[in-house]
Order: sequence, then structure tokens, then C-alpha cells
Amino acid sequence: MQIGIIGLGKMGFNLALNLQRNGYEVIANDVNAEFVQNIATHGIDTADTVEVLTQKLNGRKVIWLMVPAGEIVDKVIEGLVPFLSPSDIIIDGGNSNFKESKRRYNALKAQGIDFLDCGTSGGTSGALNGACTMIGGDDEVFAYVEQVFKDISVENGYLHTGAAGSGHFTKMVHNGIEYGMMQAIAEGFEVFEHSEFDIDFHKTAKMFNHGSVVRGWLMELTQSAFSKDPKLDAIKGVMHSSGEGKWTLETALDLGVPTPVIALSVMMRYRSQMEDTFSGKVVAALRNEFGGHAVEKK
Amino acid sequence: MQIGIIGLGKMGFNLALNLQRNGYEVIANDVNAEFVQNIATHGIDTADTVEVLTQKLNGRKVIWLMVPAGEIVDKVIEGLVPFLSPSDIIIDGGNSNFKESKRRYNALKAQGIDFLDCGTSGGTSGALNGACTMIGGDDEVFAYVEQVFKDISVENGYLHTGAAGSGHFTKMVHNGIEYGMMQAIAEGFEVFEHSEFDIDFHKTAKMFNHGSVVRGWLMELTQSAFSKDPKLDAIKGVMHSSGEGKWTLETALDLGVPTPVIALSVMMRYRSQMEDTFSGKVVAALRNEFGGHAVEKK
Repeated sequence: MQIGIIGLGKMGFNLALNLQRNGYEVIANDVNAEFVQNIATHGIDTADTVEVLTQKLNGRKVIWLMVPAGEIVDKVIEGLVPFLSPSDIIIDGGNSNFKESKRRYNALKAQGIDFLDCGTSGGTSGALNGACTMIGGDDEVFAYVEQVFKDISVENGYLHTGAAGSGHFTKMVHNGIEYGMMQAIAEGFEVFEHSEFDIDFHKTAKMFNHGSVVRGWLMELTQSAFSKDPKLDAIKGVMHSSGEGKWTLETALDLGVPTPVIALSVMMRYRSQMEDTFSGKVVAALRNEFGGHAVEKK
Repeated sequence: MQIGIIGLGKMGFNLALNLQRNGYEVIANDVNAEFVQNIATHGIDTADTVEVLTQKLNGRKVIWLMVPAGEIVDKVIEGLVPFLSPSDIIIDGGNSNFKESKRRYNALKAQGIDFLDCGTSGGTSGALNGACTMIGGDDEVFAYVEQVFKDISVENGYLHTGAAGSGHFTKMVHNGIEYGMMQAIAEGFEVFEHSEFDIDFHKTAKMFNHGSVVRGWLMELTQSAFSKDPKLDAIKGVMHSSGEGKWTLETALDLGVPTPVIALSVMMRYRSQMEDTFSGKVVAALRNEFGGHAVEKK
């Protein structure tokens, strides 16, 4: 089976190698010519343009997008559609917002083109060696490419989650859970760090991974991080995010559902990106106003 | 080697069987005669009283307490001490507060008796088949019984965490992390439950456990729970707690360290135990006062 891949960043690049290893005939494309040349050295067929990519695909075309969420997805789809025929399949394997995936599904449906939204978890190593995929879209379309998801995922690591949008929705919530779990682990080690005891973070994380209730992949990554830098002295505690925690929180607010831990996990990421806060200044000023409490001068 | 066990609840009972399987000569005691009779049917030697228990132990006695945290631990120690000799070892394997463990260590030290605080994770199945243990106390005392911890724990699943109190401290923080991780998972499934999609919770949790970032033992337990009751229709969402999340939060407050996710996890447990809240009444009344907004009558 042939698969076109557009987007050869860390995830798309590894996915292409994963597909190749599983016997698929991959044709790869990226706007960055260097990425295209690089993947060609792995014996993967490439296409300099989206038009050439589609020309190399026979029959019912299957094109996997692995590009950054947002406008780029629309741009790529816009560029692709003129070269596609009815029932060709576009898979968005990136981290798109599920509402946009529903919109794209409907817009493509109107042109006869099939669309699947695929949330992909497991990081770059998963993309290469066995991912975890959650796929939204029509039953027939999913069935046509089910073997692909089965092949590139770990055993039992793929699921047709339901209607269009549900794949990215499930991945979004997965990331919301991930934010909360990571913040919980981090807060625990914050308490260790400030405690009266001389806790060895690496040994403790390792012990936690052997028989404790909190064992799991995130604790294994915690262990790995401390094995390289016992006190994480080399990095700053600035936590960036790519939006899915925020979307989970926005969705919870739209649904009127309380998710305080996910909410605070998002907020703590924003706080970590600020050197100082204006709210801190306001509270300090107010304490000074009513009680004459000292403020720290700039 | 002989080990005395006092406390034959779910954890102590399973630990006794674990020790027996590993070749230890266990002498078991509990205030509940039924528990004592029950464990005797497994071929484990028993003692009707603490005095008899100590008489059956030769040389440097090792006595493992697996009783509920709080006053009971002090009562049991008080009853034991008259029958102990200098350098005998008491291990508290329960969920005691680390401050109390430090106090007990010092009080026993003054009488020449050795004390180790051992946090035990992994649930009842862990106690039976291989636990995760974190032990605080003196190097020499730990070294004397290290093999016991090694034998009853999973491979790499035991750690001498440091000075007296550090074992229960580490276990406390472990539980704080556990609260946050569980609440994060739960909030994700709350969003699924209220979503527009027909998410299959069991299949989703199972898929999450195969290659995703949030895979781990707690997600496996989530999968197990949904496999038995797909929508958890049979139970109420009332979340009890045994105190270690609260202690983690109290410790964070004492240290002046922000742990918002652990804090909210504790608060959400308290909220779940209330049918209605007084704070809800206050806010509803205030909205009515200033804006004439409708209140729901009792």
C-alpha cells in the first residue's frame, strides 16, 4: 500500500520510517527541502511538490498530514484538494483542535473527499517504534486504512474513537490528563526539594517505578531526567505548552464541567513563563495600603 | 530469620504471607482473634498476646507493625516496649505521619530500641506479591533488615530514603502525587462523559495504556474499573481519603511551597463528601441580593 506523508518534522519523519519498516511504500513531502533530502537518504521516495506527491499515488490515495496545528493544516489541504479525486483520504495526524477537524471533515465531505482525524501519542519514539493512535471519522474510511493504524501503533494501541473530531478530541483530553499528572508529579518533587530530608530524586523516582501506585511512563521519564541531572540544575522551570491543555479547559468550561486540577496545571504553566506578576504587585500594594506591610522595591 | 507481625488487616495479612513465602519464620498477632485464627490456617505461627509474641522471638527481635495510623501505633509500641531489649527493632509499616515517626524514633532511641519507618505502596496485591517500600532510619538498623525489604518488595522496589521519618515522608508525598494523578485522570473522563461524542471509556483507557504518554498503573486500574462497570453506574462519586494527601498539603504550606494541584485534589475529595455546600448557598444568596438572580429553593 502507498502512503503519502506531508510534513517531515520530528513526528512525521519518524512516522515515515515506521511506515517504511512496516512495508508501506511511502512518498514524502515537506516545504523544507532539507527535510526531504534527509529522508531520501533513508531510501524513502520523495516528492518536491504536493502535485508530484499525488501523481505518485495510485488508486484511492491516502495522504497523512503531520504538520503543525492551525492555519498550516488548512493551507496544506487547500493545496492538496485540486489534485485529489472523490473518496481519496486525508488523515490529519497532528494536534489539531477537534472543532477544526469537524469543520475540515464537513468541508472535504462536500467535495467528496474523506477525512480522518488522528490523535497521535507516545512522543517521537512512539512515532518511530510504535505510537498510540486515536482516530475519528466514518466507519468505512477507518476500515479502509485500519491496518495502517494497527501497523504503526503498539499492540492494542489504536482505537476508532467515533465520529469525525473524536480522535483529536480524545487526544486533547489525553493531553489535559497529562498536564495534571505531570503537575502532580512535579509538585511532589517540589515538596521533596524543600524538605528537611536529603531525598535522592533519581533513586526515589526509580523506586516509585517498581511496585508503587504512581508508577508509569511519566514517572519513568522523571527517573530518566534525574539520572542525567540529579537536581535539574541545568534547566529553568519554564513550562511551555502547545495548546491542548488550554483546549481541554476551554471545553470543560463550555460543558460547565469542573476540572480544577487541569485548570491549575494550565495556569501554573503560564505563571512559570513570567519573571514577575502584575497580580503580585497588586496584592503587595494592597497589603501596604491597609496594613503598612513592607513591599519589595524594584 | 524470625519476624513478628502485629496487625493482620488486609495489608498485614498479605505481608505475613509474603514473608512466609520468602522463607521467614513469621509470628503473627492481632487484637482481633478471628484474624489470628485465619492466618493460622495458612500455617503461620501465632501469638495471642504481644508478650507471647516477643517470647517466641530469639536474639535481636524484629517486629513489624501494620496497624492503622495514629494513637493505635503508640498504644502498640507502649505495650511492646516492656518485653523488648536494647537494639531490638520495631518497623512501622503503616501510613503514619512522618512527624510522629520522628517522635517515636527519638522516644524509642532514648530506651535503646531501634525504629524504622517504612512507607508501603502497591496496595494489598503489592503487600502479597511484591510491595514498594521506602524506609527511614539509622544505617546500621536498615542494613540489619535490608534483606527483608528486598525480599518482600518487587525488584528495585525498596529504598533507604534517609534519616528517621523520611520513609513515611516519602510515602506521604507519593500519596500526594497519587491524589493529583487520580484527579487528573478523573477530570479527563468527566470531560469525556459530558462530551458530544460517544466515547467508550473502557476501550479508551485500554488504548491509553498501550503506547500513550498517560499509561501507567493508575490508568490500568481505570481500565479495570470500566471493564467491570462501563459507566460506573453502580457507585457514587464520593471520594474518601486516609489523610496523606492532607498531610502533603499541610507540609507544603509549612514549607511555603505552592502545590495547587495536590491542594485542589484534596479539596475535591471534601466537596464530593457533601450533598450541598454552605458556600454554594452564600454565593446564590449574594447573586440574589445584588442582581435579583433566581435561587433554587430547598
